[in-house]
Amino acid sequence: MWLSIDPTSDFSIHNLPFGIFSTSKLPKRVGVALGTWIVDMAKLAELGAFGGLDFEKAVFEKEFLNDFMAAGKTARVGVRQVLQQIFEDPCSPFKALAADFLIPQKDTVLHLPVKVGDYTDFYSSEQHAFNVGAMFRDPQRALLPNWKHLPVAYHGRASSIFVSGTNFHRPKGQTCPDETQPPIFGPTKRLDIELEMATIIGTGNAIGDSISVDTAEDHVFGFVLFNDWSARDIQKWEYVPLGPFLAKNFFSSISPWVVTMEALAPFRVPAPEQNPEVLPYLKERNRLNFDVQLEVYLSPHSSLDVLHSSFDIPNSSFRICRSNFKNMYWTVAQQIAHHTVNGCNLNTGDVLASGTISGKEPDSFGSLLELTWGGKNPLTLPDGSVRKFVEDHDTVIIRGFAQKGEIRVGFGEVKTTILPAK
Amino acid sequence: MWLSIDPTSDFSIHNLPFGIFSTSKLPKRVGVALGTWIVDMAKLAELGAFGGLDFEKAVFEKEFLNDFMAAGKTARVGVRQVLQQIFEDPCSPFKALAADFLIPQKDTVLHLPVKVGDYTDFYSSEQHAFNVGAMFRDPQRALLPNWKHLPVAYHGRASSIFVSGTNFHRPKGQTCPDETQPPIFGPTKRLDIELEMATIIGTGNAIGDSISVDTAEDHVFGFVLFNDWSARDIQKWEYVPLGPFLAKNFFSSISPWVVTMEALAPFRVPAPEQNPEVLPYLKERNRLNFDVQLEVYLSPHSSLDVLHSSFDIPNSSFRICRSNFKNMYWTVAQQIAHHTVNGCNLNTGDVLASGTISGKEPDSFGSLLELTWGGKNPLTLPDGSVRKFVEDHDTVIIRGFAQKGEIRVGFGEVKTTILPAK
Repeated sequence: MWLSIDPTSDFSIHNLPFGIFSTSKLPKRVGVALGTWIVDMAKLAELGAFGGLDFEKAVFEKEFLNDFMAAGKTARVGVRQVLQQIFEDPCSPFKALAADFLIPQKDTVLHLPVKVGDYTDFYSSEQHAFNVGAMFRDPQRALLPNWKHLPVAYHGRASSIFVSGTNFHRPKGQTCPDETQPPIFGPTKRLDIELEMATIIGTGNAIGDSISVDTAEDHVFGFVLFNDWSARDIQKWEYVPLGPFLAKNFFSSISPWVVTMEALAPFRVPAPEQNPEVLPYLKERNRLNFDVQLEVYLSPHSSLDVLHSSFDIPNSSFRICRSNFKNMYWTVAQQIAHHTVNGCNLNTGDVLASGTISGKEPDSFGSLLELTWGGKNPLTLPDGSVRKFVEDHDTVIIRGFAQKGEIRVGFGEVKTTILPAK
Repeated sequence: MWLSIDPTSDFSIHNLPFGIFSTSKLPKRVGVALGTWIVDMAKLAELGAFGGLDFEKAVFEKEFLNDFMAAGKTARVGVRQVLQQIFEDPCSPFKALAADFLIPQKDTVLHLPVKVGDYTDFYSSEQHAFNVGAMFRDPQRALLPNWKHLPVAYHGRASSIFVSGTNFHRPKGQTCPDETQPPIFGPTKRLDIELEMATIIGTGNAIGDSISVDTAEDHVFGFVLFNDWSARDIQKWEYVPLGPFLAKNFFSSISPWVVTMEALAPFRVPAPEQNPEVLPYLKERNRLNFDVQLEVYLSPHSSLDVLHSSFDIPNSSFRICRSNFKNMYWTVAQQIAHHTVNGCNLNTGDVLASGTISGKEPDSFGSLLELTWGGKNPLTLPDGSVRKFVEDHDTVIIRGFAQKGEIRVGFGEVKTTILPAK
């Protein structure tokens, strides 16, 4: 490597995640994060780096990754190889041109990486489904009868998915704290996070076709961190019988860098055994999850330095959760196979979120609903702040990374600050 | 009128609905239906007809209506006025050029009129919600406690919305006919229609903003007929606790012509009184519905002539339902106000379906689930066919029209044939 990268950087040469950036001089375009730099892919293409690869290089000049994603796995793998060759070869002819295509991340603005077609939210962590069922129904029958037979999911709102750093106002809505009285209207009192990962679909399927569980991963471009903001009081009142709506569709936050399937290949781990046995269309030859460590930080009533810091976790932030993407009962491949088994068409840019990822330990629960058990056990943070749910001016940061020996592949972060209700 | 239009035509000079068509010579572009003709709007713009209007005329050369819709109400109203002047003025200079911009509908192919961003399905007909609640729960408590306080809705799948004439294969999926046994997999046995109308959003709102109920209609471009195909057996097994997913997302059908707000203005009627009183954000100064007559026809095991007929109801089709868009407890304005009250952003091209529109009379129920009361009372059609749900090779046609004296404004039809499971 002729480019110096800190070994603790999320953006190692093994990672090479794709995103969309702009600068004061350059319009939105495709970039690859590498250490503290962004590789300007349009510029590198212009310099001829990808001449040997068979896809339209103009995809790197677009405002979203979609056209590049649609070019498929061969293009993606080829581009990764070219980048690794360039940076690992001390005699690369591109080394002398580095100032042309390497831009310091601090001089850029990151944007929503994909044009989202449809957004689906799964419910695939057993511990999360158990916790919610135990809280709202009965610990003896916490999982509903269908839960272990199919990856439960619902459609979410695509238009309100925004990139890390975009903040939002506390949503207002109807709640009914006392069901013997009429509902009331006002800002949500139970604003919550949901720690999720999201699959970004690279190539889809035609209407009427299904994707088999063993080829499903070929359709995946990569993954981002996902915070599925939720208003629990609105949700409780509205969700029967057709599911969550305004409790979820006001805002969702994603991380700017899409980490590819190839970058995560070293971090595959066996997925939990499934009992009862699943139907044949969900049965995998090889059941694998991703060992990605996940952390949630909360910065109470964040000061301006938190709002303006970029990437580094500020001192006034406290970790409230540690979980792992491997805590998934239903794998990404099963989610895709199920989603399309009825002929539903997935498209490039679709987002399939995992659902809240909770582990078995109480500090691994992926929502405040679970961490505080519905507000009954508030969290006391090291600075003395007490939280049942998220308060105005709080900043929430999700981080994620995979590590194996020297190899580190990270997602960066997704950070959002809550502004008071309008 | 120098163009002869049959008085029974859905596409009178009062209507002027917008759609997307192509011919063997012309690529996809914007058209307006008029009698048995389509006005080639790109050509008419080229001839200078809209020179006095302040919007970019290239919107008529696009593959979807979205850019024209985004130009707003003033553009739409202006275009309607120009068209009415041209066809009502016997001395119009465009009369001599008619062969250039009028194309017989039979020589065209109609396409999906809008690029759908997000699709939301409401549940706004009281009789439908009551019927479903009575069937699955209890006639004494058929409506859930939230139903009269807010327009219940859920997010649907945008990618699987197709235009009339596109057929689909019976979907497969998990069902659990006997909950003491494991679920089974196969083609749905309870494929159903849902008779709906859908609002097409013309101009949206920014994230974090809300649209007030009294300005909500300014955001509507127009309406289409909507058949929200449903697999009742899949729905029953999957829908708790997060709502319908694979039971709905395999296919939805819409009519090709978007009938504008202005065309429907003569057909406004008071909406039902609401009791209990709704919260202030849902309270309208003037509560109005649309008097649009709706009909569903079923052509059992349709022969090829049905498949190939265009528009006219074939002799072998039988009307199984008559309903009316005025049967809405929650108005379109209330749906929009509710959808955005939490700051959720609507965009140009979003689709807000009404939910199944059932009236009080048993023959006005808008789904086979209700018409046959869950399959208990099968329909016997005039040719002796018996139907609980939709069978393979059946064709379903929804028609809709408004009529007041001589003024007729129709939606045409949405027609779909069911192909056997793949």
